[in-house]
Formats: sequence, structure tokens, C-alpha cells
Amino acid sequence: MQQYFSFEALNLNEYYTDLEKDAHHMLNVMRMSLGDTFRVVDKNKNVFKAELTNISPLTYKTFEKVEVIDNQLHKTVICPLLKGEKFDFMIQKATELGADAFLIYEAEHAVVKLDDKKRKNRLTRFEKIIQGASEQSKRLSVPTIEFVGKLNTIDLTRFDVNLFAYEDLSFKKSESLIETLNKNKKIDAVSIIFGPEGGFSEKETKLDELSFVKLGERILRAETAPLYMLSVIDALWTKRTL
Amino acid sequence: MQQYFSFEALNLNEYYTDLEKDAHHMLNVMRMSLGDTFRVVDKNKNVFKAELTNISPLTYKTFEKVEVIDNQLHKTVICPLLKGEKFDFMIQKATELGADAFLIYEAEHAVVKLDDKKRKNRLTRFEKIIQGASEQSKRLSVPTIEFVGKLNTIDLTRFDVNLFAYEDLSFKKSESLIETLNKNKKIDAVSIIFGPEGGFSEKETKLDELSFVKLGERILRAETAPLYMLSVIDALWTKRTL
Repeated sequence: MQQYFSFEALNLNEYYTDLEKDAHHMLNVMRMSLGDTFRVVDKNKNVFKAELTNISPLTYKTFEKVEVIDNQLHKTVICPLLKGEKFDFMIQKATELGADAFLIYEAEHAVVKLDDKKRKNRLTRFEKIIQGASEQSKRLSVPTIEFVGKLNTIDLTRFDVNLFAYEDLSFKKSESLIETLNKNKKIDAVSIIFGPEGGFSEKETKLDELSFVKLGERILRAETAPLYMLSVIDALWTKRTL
Repeated sequence: MQQYFSFEALNLNEYYTDLEKDAHHMLNVMRMSLGDTFRVVDKNKNVFKAELTNISPLTYKTFEKVEVIDNQLHKTVICPLLKGEKFDFMIQKATELGADAFLIYEAEHAVVKLDDKKRKNRLTRFEKIIQGASEQSKRLSVPTIEFVGKLNTIDLTRFDVNLFAYEDLSFKKSESLIETLNKNKKIDAVSIIFGPEGGFSEKETKLDELSFVKLGERILRAETAPLYMLSVIDALWTKRTL
């Protein structure tokens, strides 16, 4: 069942016309017709099954409230831009895997650099990818995405843990990802920090708030590491809530 | 440091000429010259640092043995072909994340179907992707890949656990992935089974050997589910070996 997001607060068994923004997708892509059903998530993360009752203006009726478990852990992916389609791919998969926010920082060894105009265009594309992945994976919220400055300008103290996967761990004591996450059971917000293809600069690895974690024996590509971490976090939290 | 695979059994401080197959990659792609160093994994999974000592014939000398931990769990991804580039992407990422073998089965609701000639061509392309991802991620072995018949023709009894992620779990008791894996600490071989874009057929879900697992609250795309499972398995085994 396809899912759409409403920006209103919805009630059961009422008629709404606020999904005009999704009319093209519903009618032309999904080829829905009168009587077809879909899911709507409202602004308070309430989920309803709804029926299409009119085409123009596009109108639907909520007919069932769906009970869902909301994983309360907030996950922010702190990442630089990556080359080619890797970044698009990463945000799509990370959205499926539960990321709640993306902060795009200016890495010292960044391979990709953009001026303000290009950034604005990219952001529009990124938001579209995130929106699509959110609907498809039936998330209850759409992740946010924004450009920020250098890594050391981000306030990392607002996260309970800042997971930092770094290839060269010879100089640092590292723990397994699961140990790091299990050490503190009361984590409300976590960040996942990864570097560009060119790797982290030494300065970037010296921030006080970082928890260095070991991600297996292999070398993961820049776009794979966050997916690994998000999967493991999700599995741990699924275990806790089941 | 770039990694290559030798099919021989290597010793320390000896000269070898068996990497002619990688000459193009070393000289033209990586632009190596005399004295440059790289990693070689031999057929017994021994890892050496080596130095390029001659260009033609391409000769190298092993000068240091590298101690590595080999995660002994054998992971087989049992998968149908997927549309477009999704399958290429999946095997690349799954190789990075530790898959040891791929069995491509004929799903009842398969979207992609190929004749024998096309299969052979695809297999050549798949092997190239797997080889590249193995070198890049510094694996100790290159995963195998082959076409097999329908899901019910595969001998699933040779795996200690067959992880089966199925969206509609209302009719089945499912466990979290971590619970399923922790139940039996003596797992040597595990399979990860996933369906095509069209989903599993009812018949496919009725095989006796399947362990139904829950992968979080969201709906993962066909190519994302195996990456989730491989990440979680790797994190659990990393925790056990650290």
C-alpha cells in the first residue's frame, strides 16, 4: 500500500483535500482510481488507511487508524558530499534504514566542492530522493537535510554518542559498534560521522566528542559505512522494542 | 594500500610473477612504479605486503606478513535477479559487507528473466564487480556466484540458519534478527534469502528450514535487505572476536 505524507493533523472517518501535491504520483504513477486505498501519515505521525473518494479536487477519506511503533532514537548522518551518484544512493538507502537528519559538512579532504547556487539545486534533488524513499519505506517522518560548515563547527554535544568510523585505528582504542551502543542504554540522539573518499584530516579526528568504532575487518567505502551503522542500530533497537 | 589476489601459496621474502593478470590495473589504473608497495592475499588467505620489483614480466617481492583475523562465519546470499543496476549494486555492497557466496535462484514472481546466453554474459560482469569490491575492501577471499534453479531445489539443510525477511509476518511468529543469531552461538554457515521486487510466492514462504526475521519497522527495498542483514551479522561477530 503506497504511503503519502500529510502536513495536517488528521482524524478518523473524515474527508481531506490536502494531498493535491501527490496527485500526479497517485493518478499517473500508481494509476489509482476511485475507491483505491493508501496510507497517510499526518504531521503528528499518526497513520491512517485512506480511500480515494474524488479525483478533482483530489479528496480522500480516512477509514482506519493504523497502530505503529515509533523507534524514538534520533539518528543524524553527518557526511560530506561524495562523487557521482554515491551521495544520492547513500541518502536513499540511509532514509530506508532509518536516518532522521543529514548534515552535509565541508570535509578538509573533500573531493566534491560546490558553490551556493549548485548547492541549492542539489538540495532540491536530495529532498526529492529522501521524500520518495520515505514514502516507499513507509517511514513516519521525512528526514531533513542541510549544508553546514566544517566538522568542528557542528555542536556535537547535542548527541549522546557520536559514532566515528576511522580506518586507521592503530593510534586509538576502538570498540565494536555494538559495545559502544550497549554501554549506554539511554541514548536518545546519535550521530554517525563519516569522511569523504579522500579520508578524514588529522584535525577532524581530534574532536573530543568522538566515539571511535570498529566496523568489521574489511574496508568499507564512504557510502557503505553509514548503511552498516544504521542497520546495526536499527537491529539493536528492534530487539529492545519487540 | 591496494590489494590483489594470488592463486599460489606465497612465502615471505620471495619473488613472484603470477600477478600478470593485474598488470593493467597496477600500472595504468593505480599508476604504480618500481618500488611501490601493495597487499597480496594468497590462496591460503595469507596476507603479505609486497614491493613491485620489475615491470615486464611483472614481478614482486613479499617483504612483510600481515596478521589478519578471519571471520569464520560463511554467509551465502540467496537472491533472484533484480531490475536494472540494483543487482550490480547489491553484489558490490554485499561483497564489501562480507558475503561469501551468491546463489541466484529463479523466483516465482521474478521480474527479470534471462536465457542461458545472457546469463553467461551477466555472470562474467558479476564476477568482475565482485573481484573489484573484494580487492577494494581488502577481503581475504573472493565470493563465488552461480545461477541455481527454484528456491525449493536448493539444499537449505547445509546452512545452520536460513534468514528469511518477509514483509507480511502477521501469520508467522517472527523474531528480531539479533535474537535469531544469538540463540545459537555455534553458527558456521548462514544463508540470507530475499525475494524479487514482486515479493515471495506463498509456496516459497512455506519451506521448512526458514527462520523468519523482522528487519525493523520500515519496508526495505529488495536490494537493501541483504545489506542490513550482513551488517548486523558482521557487527555481532566483530563483537565476539574483539
